[in-house]
Amino acid sequence: MKETYAKAGVNIDAAARVKELIGKHARSTLRPEVLSGVGFFGGLFEFKGYQQPVLVSSVDGVGTKLKIASALARHDTIGIDIVNHCVNDILTCGAEPLFFLDYIAMGKLVPEQVEAVAQGLAQACREVGCALIGGETAEMPGLYTGEDYDLVGFIIGVVEKEKIIMGKAIMAGDTIIGLSSSGLHTNGYSLVRRLFGETPSALNTHYPELGRTLGEELLEPHRCYYHQLKPLLPIIKGMAHITGGGLMGNVPRILPQGVAAQFHTQAWGIPPIFRLIQQRGNVAQDEMYRVFNMGIGMVLISSPDNAKQVTKALPEAKIIGGVVKQKGEARVVIE
Amino acid sequence: MKETYAKAGVNIDAAARVKELIGKHARSTLRPEVLSGVGFFGGLFEFKGYQQPVLVSSVDGVGTKLKIASALARHDTIGIDIVNHCVNDILTCGAEPLFFLDYIAMGKLVPEQVEAVAQGLAQACREVGCALIGGETAEMPGLYTGEDYDLVGFIIGVVEKEKIIMGKAIMAGDTIIGLSSSGLHTNGYSLVRRLFGETPSALNTHYPELGRTLGEELLEPHRCYYHQLKPLLPIIKGMAHITGGGLMGNVPRILPQGVAAQFHTQAWGIPPIFRLIQQRGNVAQDEMYRVFNMGIGMVLISSPDNAKQVTKALPEAKIIGGVVKQKGEARVVIE
Repeated sequence: MKETYAKAGVNIDAAARVKELIGKHARSTLRPEVLSGVGFFGGLFEFKGYQQPVLVSSVDGVGTKLKIASALARHDTIGIDIVNHCVNDILTCGAEPLFFLDYIAMGKLVPEQVEAVAQGLAQACREVGCALIGGETAEMPGLYTGEDYDLVGFIIGVVEKEKIIMGKAIMAGDTIIGLSSSGLHTNGYSLVRRLFGETPSALNTHYPELGRTLGEELLEPHRCYYHQLKPLLPIIKGMAHITGGGLMGNVPRILPQGVAAQFHTQAWGIPPIFRLIQQRGNVAQDEMYRVFNMGIGMVLISSPDNAKQVTKALPEAKIIGGVVKQKGEARVVIE
Repeated sequence: MKETYAKAGVNIDAAARVKELIGKHARSTLRPEVLSGVGFFGGLFEFKGYQQPVLVSSVDGVGTKLKIASALARHDTIGIDIVNHCVNDILTCGAEPLFFLDYIAMGKLVPEQVEAVAQGLAQACREVGCALIGGETAEMPGLYTGEDYDLVGFIIGVVEKEKIIMGKAIMAGDTIIGLSSSGLHTNGYSLVRRLFGETPSALNTHYPELGRTLGEELLEPHRCYYHQLKPLLPIIKGMAHITGGGLMGNVPRILPQGVAAQFHTQAWGIPPIFRLIQQRGNVAQDEMYRVFNMGIGMVLISSPDNAKQVTKALPEAKIIGGVVKQKGEARVVIE
């Protein structure tokens, strides 16, 4: 009997259809600098108008938030998650986004599912003026099973060298400002899945304290901080995007030696979803702060005077702690 | 009982160890332009010394070649595959590589396995002067099972605007040159796995026509064409990297409307691995050319005079066809 690639589970024709469907959404994001259209071997982006440009890049996944999207067959927001995650990551260095590439891999290519993901990608890209310049869709039978897929994002942005934000000037006495997260963002989902399960019935359960179903809460898109923070970048010394590792894991990445970040956790309200998770699993307080963002999605550090300007310009910004002297390694203190 | 992230299958400490192990290899690739070290929220790359720079980006996976690597527990070459795949993709536009980011996702983080992958990434990056500037390692229990993992690469390179190669000047009468592949590169593995299985015993079978075991043949790293082709770029009108879709799928991507590529398949020897696959599965000739590279990993198109220069400078390069007039869509003819 004749063997074919299709019998081995790889459908080249479906791949071609997917390229077309994605292309339609990707084209809605293009900027004049994009010279290649969509679908060439390389994405071509003309780079001009900067004095001393520094390219800022990041790669991220959305973790097992994907499993929740699959369980609820709702794929139109997960693309927003990954773009916003990437945009926030390079924003911490002071960078504005230029272009984005995605990777979607699954066991069996379902063109409509991929299109829903691409629609979310394109929507979030348009909102920050970022071109969705390329991507790869891989059908990998035997590696992914059932409805499962993985989604990866890659972003390139730019910042003028003199405007790079890396936290080097942070010192004791500086103020720590927090911006709220919109939910779990993209971290801690494996623990949540263990505690609540991931069946549609578990996810469709309504919780009064959430005011909606668990699934709706868990799929809330990762918030993007770009537009709010862009005008404030000149007065910020350091920024940490609170992703995997929580406040404990991410804030030390921007602290110089010899200082620690001290958080006053009474300064902000822990959102109900985190209390629900903690109760359900009897999870230790420390562990909660290591795994989840606990309601703070982005941390800014600035001088006390500039902190006043930040909170004036951005009423939702809360002063949540301060930088203190400490011997040895930089670390975070939750109190 | 207290629940923890570790019990849910995510080990934050293993993740920290992996970061260190990868960091060691990544640092061996850094260039002076890299301002951020390794492991910051964004990779910072200072961009200078170009007149009219165009950034060229690409994202790729290595497909289910990963399943062969896992079956043989040999993870030190798969990183070479993904870097070379990416380098070749942007080379088709005339670009030189600047920096690379990787994404590795698995069900259970095995630091030594990730380190072996990172070692291959760093080795291939060093060979083309490309900085391994960042990456993401994701532990996703429930999405990946057993020893399985996925590996994705993102590359950014640069080309001067006036030196972009996009195939626009290709015309009837031009010569098509082929450079040999080193094996399957990274495509067609799902079909091969279906035909031969992926047990260690199947992969450790010695085939006289291959002169080695099937597994050794299948894990042969994807060849990199950068150093051979770099000096010849000024006399090349178009280049196609022969990946998923084979000659049939990739060459039309660079052909203008109204012309076709005609290949004389007698002009090069089809390597034994492709004959072995074809016989084993009684695969149709057309299907073979749609799925596999059939021994040609990179296609160059230039004027007949320049083609002579190419074959003189690069004795291994073979004239494998020509560009002919054709109404309508660009396409490929195998004869």
